[in-house]
Amino acid sequence: MGGLMATRLLDARASLTVWNRTSERAAPLVGKGAKFANSAAEAVRHAHFVVVMVEGDSASQAVWNGKDGVFAGLRPDAIAIDCSTLSPVRTQALTERAGRLGMRFVAAPVSGSLPQAEAGTLMFLAGGAERDIEEAGIVFRHLGKGVHDLGSPPLASLSKLAVNGMLACQVVAAAEACGFLERAGLSLDAVSKLLAQTPVASPITMATLRQIAAGNYDPLFPISMALKDLEYLASASDYLGTSLPMTNCAQDLLDRARPWKSQNISAVAKLFSPSLPVERIRK
Amino acid sequence: MGGLMATRLLDARASLTVWNRTSERAAPLVGKGAKFANSAAEAVRHAHFVVVMVEGDSASQAVWNGKDGVFAGLRPDAIAIDCSTLSPVRTQALTERAGRLGMRFVAAPVSGSLPQAEAGTLMFLAGGAERDIEEAGIVFRHLGKGVHDLGSPPLASLSKLAVNGMLACQVVAAAEACGFLERAGLSLDAVSKLLAQTPVASPITMATLRQIAAGNYDPLFPISMALKDLEYLASASDYLGTSLPMTNCAQDLLDRARPWKSQNISAVAKLFSPSLPVERIRK
Repeated sequence: MGGLMATRLLDARASLTVWNRTSERAAPLVGKGAKFANSAAEAVRHAHFVVVMVEGDSASQAVWNGKDGVFAGLRPDAIAIDCSTLSPVRTQALTERAGRLGMRFVAAPVSGSLPQAEAGTLMFLAGGAERDIEEAGIVFRHLGKGVHDLGSPPLASLSKLAVNGMLACQVVAAAEACGFLERAGLSLDAVSKLLAQTPVASPITMATLRQIAAGNYDPLFPISMALKDLEYLASASDYLGTSLPMTNCAQDLLDRARPWKSQNISAVAKLFSPSLPVERIRK
Repeated sequence: MGGLMATRLLDARASLTVWNRTSERAAPLVGKGAKFANSAAEAVRHAHFVVVMVEGDSASQAVWNGKDGVFAGLRPDAIAIDCSTLSPVRTQALTERAGRLGMRFVAAPVSGSLPQAEAGTLMFLAGGAERDIEEAGIVFRHLGKGVHDLGSPPLASLSKLAVNGMLACQVVAAAEACGFLERAGLSLDAVSKLLAQTPVASPITMATLRQIAAGNYDPLFPISMALKDLEYLASASDYLGTSLPMTNCAQDLLDRARPWKSQNISAVAKLFSPSLPVERIRK
């Protein structure tokens, strides 16, 4: 994801320095004109805009904190944009630390996955100071199609998690409906054509049906990532004193689909569809 | 619903005879040019096309069967179209009885509710003999925007129920997300704007958010009807040996929302949203 975003910035002739904990991942970007840094601190040392995109809270800790981390290298006037999907607690910690250091921080988790990152059609769910989000607009415009200003960084995190919760519900509901309709006698193709013209036809529902019908589980949004987000969401819900029974149910089912955790979230359909081949899982 | 459909046929200058178990409901149609019948049998006696639209299995029994029912009056070459959302068991019974009587039967439950019935944009999920569905096209074209031929009448029923199951899941998931995001600090209006641009934006999700934000629970698809459909769906799922855990969860929550059963399905949001006024329920 981060690599695809960096490629777009390079295509737009941005002066870019890249770093990845797994340095081979940064190498192709160097081939496209990026400068290579040996640490996060070094990567951000001369940057006005810093974009961080990692998997979750523990990667975030590793990349931001510590003596070679982003915080160690940031210029005082830099705008640091974190596009990762983090827990609101982690986002709040980043915000506070940036504040103490007198630095500018914008949380901007994205709606969209690999195809949207490649096409530059991500949607940013941003939180931070208004002028920082505005100034970061030049970066957002290269990477996506719009920015939603949600107010504070934790609220941006919470919003992203809520969207992913609804997404998980829709995917699992579509998967179980496929299993039901298949057993009733419809082909997955017929199901897809039918649902396209009903009020439940969301982009994610239709994409899920296409993937299930094609047996294509390329990990655009793998089950492992969905489970991570749903754990953050459940904690946040506990903290806020709300209940998310549907989302909890989706989480339980995705948890049962853990054998396919590196596959796309649509692979949850294997729990329900009699026609889907379930590969033998290696111990 | 049936009244709105009848009005469209009258507007198209169809020769129409109407009957309703509650005769006052048929009266306005007579004002618009429909003939009035004193029984279902009488209403259908001279008709080539018969359209039945009732709430569910028990109303279906009352209207089709018995000495004054639809079956008692049907012409042998008539095409009887049932647009009600029935259980597949009931649909199968109707199909078999029509077959034994040498009559033509098409199950055609609809996707869409009152606004779509009024605008003539219903979608028919049809099952029956191909030539009967084709011949009934003249009726479908006046009432809706399309027909999906699903094969057999029970398969049309099962498909409709599966769509309504997904719909219930999406509505309840949207409702719980609203409660979560409201407690996090977003307005319902902000939630609606945010979700509109994400992959979860289905027509029903967006309509639900608009209704919740407006506090408008006019019964387009009331909780009582959703619960009836979900009961049929659960029975069908048992029969087919499938599981619908997400749909079951939505059913449980809609069941908890039974105090508002005559309101629209979006009223389930009252279970979750701290800002929504919960009217005192009369004993």
